[in-house]
Amino acid sequence: MADGITPRATDYSQWYLDVIAAAELSDYSPVKGCMVFRPHGFAVWDLMKNDLDRRFRETGHVNAYFPLLIPVSFLSKEAQHVEGFAKECAVVTHHRLRMAEGGGVEPDPASKLEEPLVIRPTSETIIWHMYGQWIQSWRDLPILINQWANIVRWEMKTRPFLRTAEFLWQEGHTAHATRSEAVEEARRMLDVYEAFAADVLALPVVKGVKSTSERFAGAEDTYCIEALMQNGWALQAGTSHFLGQNFARAFDVSFQNTAGEREFVWATSWGVSTRLIGAVIMTHSDDTGLVLPPAVAPVQVVITPIWKSDSERELVLGHAERVRAALGSEFRVKVDARDTIKPGAKYFEWERKGVPLRLEIGPRDVAGDSVFAAPRTGGKKFGIPAATVADGVRAALAAIQAELYSRARARRDETMRTCTSYEGFKVELEKGGFVRTYWADDAANEEKIKEDTKATIRCFPLEGQEEAAGQTCFYSGRPATHVALFARAY
Amino acid sequence: MADGITPRATDYSQWYLDVIAAAELSDYSPVKGCMVFRPHGFAVWDLMKNDLDRRFRETGHVNAYFPLLIPVSFLSKEAQHVEGFAKECAVVTHHRLRMAEGGGVEPDPASKLEEPLVIRPTSETIIWHMYGQWIQSWRDLPILINQWANIVRWEMKTRPFLRTAEFLWQEGHTAHATRSEAVEEARRMLDVYEAFAADVLALPVVKGVKSTSERFAGAEDTYCIEALMQNGWALQAGTSHFLGQNFARAFDVSFQNTAGEREFVWATSWGVSTRLIGAVIMTHSDDTGLVLPPAVAPVQVVITPIWKSDSERELVLGHAERVRAALGSEFRVKVDARDTIKPGAKYFEWERKGVPLRLEIGPRDVAGDSVFAAPRTGGKKFGIPAATVADGVRAALAAIQAELYSRARARRDETMRTCTSYEGFKVELEKGGFVRTYWADDAANEEKIKEDTKATIRCFPLEGQEEAAGQTCFYSGRPATHVALFARAY
Repeated sequence: MADGITPRATDYSQWYLDVIAAAELSDYSPVKGCMVFRPHGFAVWDLMKNDLDRRFRETGHVNAYFPLLIPVSFLSKEAQHVEGFAKECAVVTHHRLRMAEGGGVEPDPASKLEEPLVIRPTSETIIWHMYGQWIQSWRDLPILINQWANIVRWEMKTRPFLRTAEFLWQEGHTAHATRSEAVEEARRMLDVYEAFAADVLALPVVKGVKSTSERFAGAEDTYCIEALMQNGWALQAGTSHFLGQNFARAFDVSFQNTAGEREFVWATSWGVSTRLIGAVIMTHSDDTGLVLPPAVAPVQVVITPIWKSDSERELVLGHAERVRAALGSEFRVKVDARDTIKPGAKYFEWERKGVPLRLEIGPRDVAGDSVFAAPRTGGKKFGIPAATVADGVRAALAAIQAELYSRARARRDETMRTCTSYEGFKVELEKGGFVRTYWADDAANEEKIKEDTKATIRCFPLEGQEEAAGQTCFYSGRPATHVALFARAY
Repeated sequence: MADGITPRATDYSQWYLDVIAAAELSDYSPVKGCMVFRPHGFAVWDLMKNDLDRRFRETGHVNAYFPLLIPVSFLSKEAQHVEGFAKECAVVTHHRLRMAEGGGVEPDPASKLEEPLVIRPTSETIIWHMYGQWIQSWRDLPILINQWANIVRWEMKTRPFLRTAEFLWQEGHTAHATRSEAVEEARRMLDVYEAFAADVLALPVVKGVKSTSERFAGAEDTYCIEALMQNGWALQAGTSHFLGQNFARAFDVSFQNTAGEREFVWATSWGVSTRLIGAVIMTHSDDTGLVLPPAVAPVQVVITPIWKSDSERELVLGHAERVRAALGSEFRVKVDARDTIKPGAKYFEWERKGVPLRLEIGPRDVAGDSVFAAPRTGGKKFGIPAATVADGVRAALAAIQAELYSRARARRDETMRTCTSYEGFKVELEKGGFVRTYWADDAANEEKIKEDTKATIRCFPLEGQEEAAGQTCFYSGRPATHVALFARAY
């Protein structure tokens, strides 16, 4: 793209890349599949991280940090786990470089490791090895640890934020004395994710559980939140796994219960990643550029002074600084006092960067002791008296946050149709969105549908499963076991 | 160690490891040289990070994130840089595992990378590659970016926090239009580190510049802050490099100046790491265990209720909760209401964990509507009226923070002796601490002294260099060029 943003209707994928480039959220790196988080994009992640971290603390979790590198033998200990991750691991084989004969450097053969290491694709194995050292008795339980970390999963087809070789995430890893406590934890964290997505990211999500074929490698149950993008594709926005005793068995982690018997420990893990930035971009942005919910906007309010003469300049800049001072530290505010570009160009730039609210200040606003407010989400511009500018901005930002949520919610709900025949299903699928079905669980049929339509089961929604009773599977005609949401997905 | 902590006088190295184990700050990992940051240790880092991050923002910096993996050819572009880091790089050579014939997994030969990647030992090369894309004109400067990241430098001899293969750090990387602006930035960040060390970590440091042989690989000047541990060894606690145009040349990063000419960009980089946790432990802790300055103590105040009967229990717990409420969110407070262990055992545990202030609450304290305060740094216990408990705690924590600094400062100042002969130097060195000398700069002599005494030049202190004029080098007898601080160092 040059300076323009491809319209969504023309090419949705290109639009996404153009929005990212225009907002300077990320850049391509010289390492295939790895991206650079530019300051504006990283600031969005920092805001998400701070909010999530508070929610994790409030639910009793603490942060820790485990090694980046994992011995390959650890991966093999859990059979499904290694199958799920072996094909996308970055492998460290040497610990030194030497000068190469033809110039440059190369791995020093003398530094070859006895056992290769992988860069963590997820940390269950190394963490459960450590839990094995820390857990002896019921008194040591529960362990409620979260880690903020970088992850590498080698990907051939990448897309900024949504699918990259390296990404940033948090991974919670908890250990419990009972199955029910672990299940409760997995469900609790799913609720935390749902509330965070709704309240902070303005993303309405469906809570559900994955079918066997979409389950995390090593889990008994994978719970998920699924969001819907503007092009009608679904996006998995977070997962919370009930791991049963699989990793405890693999790493021989048992505890003495209150009756003095030894039992294997019960586990969960849960995570969200920088993929959420992609979800936010794809859900809210428009053909003008990035749109950010105020809660994760690095700049929430931009004040743009407008002047024609030097005397006006002094006047409006003074007023702008007073308004900034009145907004205090409650909001993230920027005054754009540049005199190298015109107001229109400033509006254009901040719109593309997704700033939720612009406050224009011209000589007339100074005279009226007010500001002129333009929400990024459109609608009529309106005045706010300078005397109550903090109240006005607070209300405007809340309205923008609420509107983004309700727009996304309406779009999502509109698409949520129930289909009872495969022919009807295929027709509806072309329109995009979630297609709701009654389904007789069967991995082979799931695979056939995927090959045929590119749609997958996004989840069995937690709500409304009782409806499946007495229904017939839309694909096999057998008695339905689940209500299943299908969609094409990122 | 079993449960005991080896006294410092018996074995300082073992004491350090015992303090860490008793406070549950870290643990060994199955990957040689990599450590696990346990929750209590990681919380200390989180507090350091939050405070530093605020200081970086206040000085105009923003955060970003660059890839973990760097093509080996990038390292070679700056000759000194590759020489400094090639011997300690973790090298990624494959991107997939396959099932091995004898069971387990192994790197899949078909996935061998065309060009090996190293895990970043520092990020100058990848960042300057990106700056080459972002910088065209003087309008794009300065760039003031910081990154919080994990780093891998393969180490054979490791020590928790102080020297590990993987560690956590921040690295600032800035780009400027002029030499003087870059030098100013490097010096500004050194001042930020010094203020942080003094105010937050209670570490008095010497600001200085490194000799050629201790300089960062690729820098023109390496500024540093040097701290002194209780055993008389020095520890480099942070560095700030003026990189000149070295990386700009290596990565061909030039800009058009206001006169329309192209010039290479000027650079700095600066960093502190989780090594600071080691510095804090070694500076302040005692034979009882960890001592933490209040500013980085995850728990600043522990309230320990004391009771003998159930009715007393209810009484003191109620009082403890009221005191906690009165302390509000200003302090990090824990009420230890466990009835499984006795008060003495609680005191012992929290002392080993380095909690700065203990508030004991027994029936008599309830009756007197007060608490009984015991600072971790010793001295007489004292009462604080419940009505003014927040004021009392604030003052007590400030006193502890100040006392830790002044104790460390006194210890440091005591050792700071000037030696004018090599014989005297060797005698003084055995007593530990910084030995101040007049020095004629000479890398060969520096190496000889190191071989002979294990001491290195920690820095040429920024203050007092004018004293060297007219003096004679304590080692070579030649005219002195610098005042040099020598010490044995971690």
